[in-house]
Amino acid sequence: MIKRIAVLTTGGDAPGMNPAIRAVVRCGVANKLEVMGVFRGWWGLINGDLKLLDHRSVSGIISQGGTVLKTARCPEFKTEEGQERAFNTVKKFAIDGLVVIGGNGSFSAAHKFGSKYNVPCIGIAASIDNDINGIDYTIGADTAINTGLCAIDNIRDTATSMERIFVVEVMGRDCGFIALAVALAGGCEDVFIPERPVDLEASCHDIVHGNLIGKVSWIIVVAEGAGKANDIAKKITEITSLETRAITLGHIQRGGRPTALSRDLALNLGKAAVEALMRGEKDKALGFSAGKIVSVDFETAIKKKELNVENILKLIKTLT
Amino acid sequence: MIKRIAVLTTGGDAPGMNPAIRAVVRCGVANKLEVMGVFRGWWGLINGDLKLLDHRSVSGIISQGGTVLKTARCPEFKTEEGQERAFNTVKKFAIDGLVVIGGNGSFSAAHKFGSKYNVPCIGIAASIDNDINGIDYTIGADTAINTGLCAIDNIRDTATSMERIFVVEVMGRDCGFIALAVALAGGCEDVFIPERPVDLEASCHDIVHGNLIGKVSWIIVVAEGAGKANDIAKKITEITSLETRAITLGHIQRGGRPTALSRDLALNLGKAAVEALMRGEKDKALGFSAGKIVSVDFETAIKKKELNVENILKLIKTLT
Amino acid sequence: MIKRIAVLTTGGDAPGMNPAIRAVVRCGVANKLEVMGVFRGWWGLINGDLKLLDHRSVSGIISQGGTVLKTARCPEFKTEEGQERAFNTVKKFAIDGLVVIGGNGSFSAAHKFGSKYNVPCIGIAASIDNDINGIDYTIGADTAINTGLCAIDNIRDTATSMERIFVVEVMGRDCGFIALAVALAGGCEDVFIPERPVDLEASCHDIVHGNLIGKVSWIIVVAEGAGKANDIAKKITEITSLETRAITLGHIQRGGRPTALSRDLALNLGKAAVEALMRGEKDKALGFSAGKIVSVDFETAIKKKELNVENILKLIKTLT
Amino acid sequence: MIKRIAVLTTGGDAPGMNPAIRAVVRCGVANKLEVMGVFRGWWGLINGDLKLLDHRSVSGIISQGGTVLKTARCPEFKTEEGQERAFNTVKKFAIDGLVVIGGNGSFSAAHKFGSKYNVPCIGIAASIDNDINGIDYTIGADTAINTGLCAIDNIRDTATSMERIFVVEVMGRDCGFIALAVALAGGCEDVFIPERPVDLEASCHDIVHGNLIGKVSWIIVVAEGAGKANDIAKKITEITSLETRAITLGHIQRGGRPTALSRDLALNLGKAAVEALMRGEKDKALGFSAGKIVSVDFETAIKKKELNVENILKLIKTLT
Repeated sequence: MIKRIAVLTTGGDAPGMNPAIRAVVRCGVANKLEVMGVFRGWWGLINGDLKLLDHRSVSGIISQGGTVLKTARCPEFKTEEGQERAFNTVKKFAIDGLVVIGGNGSFSAAHKFGSKYNVPCIGIAASIDNDINGIDYTIGADTAINTGLCAIDNIRDTATSMERIFVVEVMGRDCGFIALAVALAGGCEDVFIPERPVDLEASCHDIVHGNLIGKVSWIIVVAEGAGKANDIAKKITEITSLETRAITLGHIQRGGRPTALSRDLALNLGKAAVEALMRGEKDKALGFSAGKIVSVDFETAIKKKELNVENILKLIKTLT
Repeated sequence: MIKRIAVLTTGGDAPGMNPAIRAVVRCGVANKLEVMGVFRGWWGLINGDLKLLDHRSVSGIISQGGTVLKTARCPEFKTEEGQERAFNTVKKFAIDGLVVIGGNGSFSAAHKFGSKYNVPCIGIAASIDNDINGIDYTIGADTAINTGLCAIDNIRDTATSMERIFVVEVMGRDCGFIALAVALAGGCEDVFIPERPVDLEASCHDIVHGNLIGKVSWIIVVAEGAGKANDIAKKITEITSLETRAITLGHIQRGGRPTALSRDLALNLGKAAVEALMRGEKDKALGFSAGKIVSVDFETAIKKKELNVENILKLIKTLT
Repeated sequence: MIKRIAVLTTGGDAPGMNPAIRAVVRCGVANKLEVMGVFRGWWGLINGDLKLLDHRSVSGIISQGGTVLKTARCPEFKTEEGQERAFNTVKKFAIDGLVVIGGNGSFSAAHKFGSKYNVPCIGIAASIDNDINGIDYTIGADTAINTGLCAIDNIRDTATSMERIFVVEVMGRDCGFIALAVALAGGCEDVFIPERPVDLEASCHDIVHGNLIGKVSWIIVVAEGAGKANDIAKKITEITSLETRAITLGHIQRGGRPTALSRDLALNLGKAAVEALMRGEKDKALGFSAGKIVSVDFETAIKKKELNVENILKLIKTLT
Repeated sequence: MIKRIAVLTTGGDAPGMNPAIRAVVRCGVANKLEVMGVFRGWWGLINGDLKLLDHRSVSGIISQGGTVLKTARCPEFKTEEGQERAFNTVKKFAIDGLVVIGGNGSFSAAHKFGSKYNVPCIGIAASIDNDINGIDYTIGADTAINTGLCAIDNIRDTATSMERIFVVEVMGRDCGFIALAVALAGGCEDVFIPERPVDLEASCHDIVHGNLIGKVSWIIVVAEGAGKANDIAKKITEITSLETRAITLGHIQRGGRPTALSRDLALNLGKAAVEALMRGEKDKALGFSAGKIVSVDFETAIKKKELNVENILKLIKTLT
């Protein structure tokens, strides 16, 4: 029977990490576990930067973006020595299991570390990119989409008033999920995603044709993995001779008050992670699919996620 | 093969109705159908208040709450004569199918009308209460929850600063869905829903006990179907002698810019409704369950929805 | 030369109190003063509940509603004994001056206490009601107005969709400032304020007349000091036979992220308060008038504020 | 006595232009004037693209960003021929006065046109940059500042969680007003504005020093007129070897629901503009200064605005 667990957040921060921490701590305590919070992800495990958290330690964080445990890149954790030191911390503090809140990179590291040293690790899928294989919805994706949508709604005011073409770059290095959701909900005229080749000629043809029949404002969403907003805007101007504006939302999408959905996912997954460790499970990521909590082997979770993009691309085109 | 369809919104307005209308019109037009918009729900059908909509008619409404087709109560539609007149409109304008955007009451009426006169009706589940049987998520519910959550976050500032007990009434006549989601995401201390008897004695015991150990601010969420905020606040004061404040969110939750989720549901369901009519389907409501579009017979959809509330009630209690 | 000051927040909390605290602490420290934070207003002074704050103590609070120093009613401070105990705390901790962040009631108490025991007190006008005489804009008013406006915009969606009459009660016991600002910015059809008698007959006449010419949705704003939304809604229904809905925004307006204006006022006033105490000033409230910081004797500040309401009432009527 | 006026919006759109249009139209109509709306600014005047507006034409626009009259650049209006054609439109439609809603460029054009052809022009100061000389607050500035602040609050979550340095570029080609307001209200560590030389060495010294004492997250605001976020971020990395991120808010700040303040300014100025034309005034811009409406000769308004930036720069530095 386990007695003490630790929780850490790694990779890029996502809105909802704080509610997830809250649920891990409070559900852990409610189950008579001791819960330690590790600071700055793997770095804190390597350097022994962790402390015991109680029910009160996580008061008031449910509505805050970011992560109170902080997060950091940690190249050292890829080395033998770094892992050894992290394992020493696990032994020294008698940690029986780890809850790893993060994305692909985090799960990959947890998989190697957990397998090598036989430390039970349970992942909680938190990533604004929503790029975890086998999981429909990660913590933070809904918030990032709504933040992006709010920006699009603002830009629409100017696009309509000034009759301009806007190219808006949103998050998504390998995955077009955010771009598709934002483009659909924002009534955007076009979208470029990493899953499909960018066909600028076709888009420019649509723009020129649209112009002829009186459609003079356009918002084109581009996932960062499909191109840079600046480059695409320039090329559209070259091809069409029409004025364009480029906007890169960037880190604005990463923060902010988590939405209800991001919080509710986080709280349910935090509870599930504690219970999974108590049942002796390990090497798995938890997330939502088809409306309920699912667990996916780390090895599966970190594979490339295939998104069925045809239908949604078609719908976006039909609706504009 | 159908040639002309009509779309109407009935019952209480829900954020996302406008994107749904947009999708019905644009997908209809893209499929070479004529689409008529009926004003003020059944009233417009009875009184022949409808007009042809084209692609451009629904420009710029995707981000707007409410419904551009308006909605109204219509007691006359419950009478033989009213239905007869509505059917005359259907015949007169050669309408081959109806898309009914609304909730339980709307589907019940559509079921009777469609069966009696053999008019194919397809429903789109739009209701902030999320109370359609067989459907996990209706258009508008996510927006209403986030609006409620935003209010709770505001109230939390004062609850914490002034160390007071707040009772906040949210929408939900027969269904505790909004109340549960808001209470969970808002980190609320208690929640009363129509699905469970209100045990004020137990809640007051918790409050008094909490006070002894230093927990002095409380937010209690109550679904309108479980009691009035004012009454509950008064009773808590009577039992505990502690000061309370009552707030009723009411119609604030009904409006506002639809969230990304409410819009994406609406757009997908609008498309699905057009396609269902084209396939010759009828007497069904469309909504989302387990992450995908489902269709449910009107007769099933209007039955009382059973919510599995135990787990979430327990989680709320564990987390506070 | 003063060495140590204390800061407290009293009365109802207002968004912007936290940035004000931040400015008092950081500007105090930058001027080599020690700054103590008193908890729960006068109660903390009476009970010696205060602690030294440093630059870091106020990190991260600039964007938070409410007050980290908390606030409370304190009837005991109206008694001789309570004031005596408060003064003992002042002496014991060698406090050379007090910054009192609050509204009318707070300034009235500070005036009496400061005069009686010769304790220099400087007030910072923080009140969502904006009811401080001699001061155009208090901390929190702009945030409360925008929160109210956001609710009105939401309600407008339903008012337009369902063609209903809404009566919306906003904060303002003695002062119609919020009600007027919200009604004007929200495009509301009518407004009732404490400064003018409520003429329901005239309003109902307008409503009935409007109905005849096709104006069927109305939003009427009422300041809490001018009547209860429920009562007014009922009377309108009695007189006009039209359906009405009542909404009371209440404490939703009190919390929330402070707007830029509320923060900028708070930060400037916090700095000014520290400098005023350093210059040996006392018995004054600081606020904004005509675009710059002004100081007003407490005795003047607590007098009834006369608002020039005619022009704005007329403008509201012209614009609807 | 004038009988017919026209209203147009030119230059970059600003949130609040729509409420200003509403007020011009409704106050005009209330004063028995005919009001024509000109589309796309000067372009519409040159090309005769204008139409009569009535009370109902401006329903529902009070809460919308952008401008329903649209706006456009118009190089042709700088030519003799363009101005001649515009004047022909004025004559043809018997327009007795023009309300020009816009910024510096708009007023400069209105001044030349109005003087040359003796067409009474009254300007309404609408510009998110807040760069009109003699006017404290323009329509749109408050909204743009709050939009920028919201982005900063989001970025703060990540800056704190990941302990990074962010450089955030906000609007402001010639004027640091937005940058200063956002930096102050956002608790930002540094700000670069066009009014002051950028001293990167000094900033980097502060950063390095801060790092040594544990301050590891920084947000530096830069007005577009003071440098590009990308360039500055790169240079900071070169000098300090610390990781940086650059974000350009750009057109996100231009749109969005106008705040209460932007709306209230707009509505009051719209009314004032109509009344000024009725009194026979011309060649003046209206705006807010020191809490009330002021009118400034166009020639004065378009001069370079001098901002007293020392105090606010010092306050920003003291508070971080």
